[in-house]
Amino acid sequence: MSILLLGKLSEAEYAVWQQHLSLHLPADETLVLASQAYDKTAVDIALVANPPAGALATLPKLRFVQSLWAGVDRLLSDPSLPENVPLARLVDPAMTRAMTECALANVFYLHRQLPAYLRQQAHRQWQPRQQVLAAQRRVGVLGMGKLGAAVAQALADVGFPVMGWSRQQGSDGLTALLSRTDILINLLPLTAHTTGILNAALFEKLPVGAALINLARGGHLVEPDLLAALEQQHISHAVLDVFNEEPLPERHPFWTHPQITVFPHVAAATDPATAARVAAENIVAFRAGRAIGGLVSHAQGY
Amino acid sequence: MSILLLGKLSEAEYAVWQQHLSLHLPADETLVLASQAYDKTAVDIALVANPPAGALATLPKLRFVQSLWAGVDRLLSDPSLPENVPLARLVDPAMTRAMTECALANVFYLHRQLPAYLRQQAHRQWQPRQQVLAAQRRVGVLGMGKLGAAVAQALADVGFPVMGWSRQQGSDGLTALLSRTDILINLLPLTAHTTGILNAALFEKLPVGAALINLARGGHLVEPDLLAALEQQHISHAVLDVFNEEPLPERHPFWTHPQITVFPHVAAATDPATAARVAAENIVAFRAGRAIGGLVSHAQGY
Repeated sequence: MSILLLGKLSEAEYAVWQQHLSLHLPADETLVLASQAYDKTAVDIALVANPPAGALATLPKLRFVQSLWAGVDRLLSDPSLPENVPLARLVDPAMTRAMTECALANVFYLHRQLPAYLRQQAHRQWQPRQQVLAAQRRVGVLGMGKLGAAVAQALADVGFPVMGWSRQQGSDGLTALLSRTDILINLLPLTAHTTGILNAALFEKLPVGAALINLARGGHLVEPDLLAALEQQHISHAVLDVFNEEPLPERHPFWTHPQITVFPHVAAATDPATAARVAAENIVAFRAGRAIGGLVSHAQGY
Repeated sequence: MSILLLGKLSEAEYAVWQQHLSLHLPADETLVLASQAYDKTAVDIALVANPPAGALATLPKLRFVQSLWAGVDRLLSDPSLPENVPLARLVDPAMTRAMTECALANVFYLHRQLPAYLRQQAHRQWQPRQQVLAAQRRVGVLGMGKLGAAVAQALADVGFPVMGWSRQQGSDGLTALLSRTDILINLLPLTAHTTGILNAALFEKLPVGAALINLARGGHLVEPDLLAALEQQHISHAVLDVFNEEPLPERHPFWTHPQITVFPHVAAATDPATAARVAAENIVAFRAGRAIGGLVSHAQGY
């Protein structure tokens, strides 16, 4: 049987993954690439990175699917995904590190009032603003999985008072967190329960002047509600790395909004050098009948 | 005898300092404000915050001068400053904390390529750039006094490889640091030895594409040399909080330079609430004949 590498990848990306996977997979495993000819009936494991819709359903012997990254919302939304085949997501340690650094960078960017100072510079305005220390800047983290927990810990380590929330804590817990949050970071998985969670009702529960950082998925955010909250100055600034449509369309109002900072989905990229090892370990565990890391619940959606 | 509070302070600032000093000074001390009438012959201690040039020379019984902040370069450049009177500088713990947060904010701003992404946003350009982790971004810190040491430690704690340099390590040590620095932070005191240290010769020793953060004094920087290094793309970006002339003159080329981020001298403000305690402790030590913290060497210049 063979392992298929399947995704929306360039030839160069296929080559990089192949190289790193070869280093970590046992010598008796056969790795085939969807970019080349292969026997569909011989594939029992698929390593996937944005596979084309329906592709997994064409593999009759498929027994295990390993995503090469953490977000599996797109994969789960493919109705042809075989429900009886275990699916694992992958939280790459380098990706967790990158996400943590991205969160620190953007929290400090807002904490030290960079958007205001950059605006002042554009107007040649020499105007010191009130100094606030991290100890007085409350950060709320939505999502307390591997990524959320790492981000919350790093922010607490540099001196911010941090609260975390996961969906299991319920809506009362969320309301409590929001009322005590100056900077809100979203790191939730995108599921039926969290789609559109960043909406007018949530924004209203934040203190006036709070800021938002969305590093998870565009589908979490109700875009018109954010624009309204910025307009009312209830939200002072938003840092957005992810969007409903990517690349963000050229005529989208976010590009030119003075209270929005746009990143082109660069918060944290999976590094094949470290992710290949995690994927290979999971494959070895699957073959041995041991527990698989990052197993996805179709019901929960992550 | 009495303690004089003397500086370029507004009435409100005088009142705030008076309030906090009163909390910490022994009850038998008399605090007088330069903004009100007082007896010059009764003053033996001066607490100073940018005092007018020559003012200290008019106090015949002066025995101790306590600066309310860390930078004493302006004070020492006043030729009428009595050389035989001990002078202490003050490193306020809240100010150290603010400086550390400012350094973290600006290192992350450069590390995560915010200047490039903000420029791309202005052009509606969706263009992911190479991801670099903190472990691969080398930071050099010039000045290893209380502030420099705190900044270096905080940067190391979040994962950057950090080297520090103080003038005692000599120019070979500086050359070694510069050759291994992607982001250079200046926190040196301004003295005869460090004036103009950020010049063409220093920039040339940095790797191509390195960035500069100046949080110390405008006098450290040779402005035309920075403009040339930016023009040649040898330096990719500079974050400047301090300038030879402050406020930065409206026609100064730094305001509109795309590779320069201008802050209005806001890296770290002294907080009277915490600084008053340090100043009061020093005054008690002086009266008791004990060692004074932060004693300035006129020869060294800090």
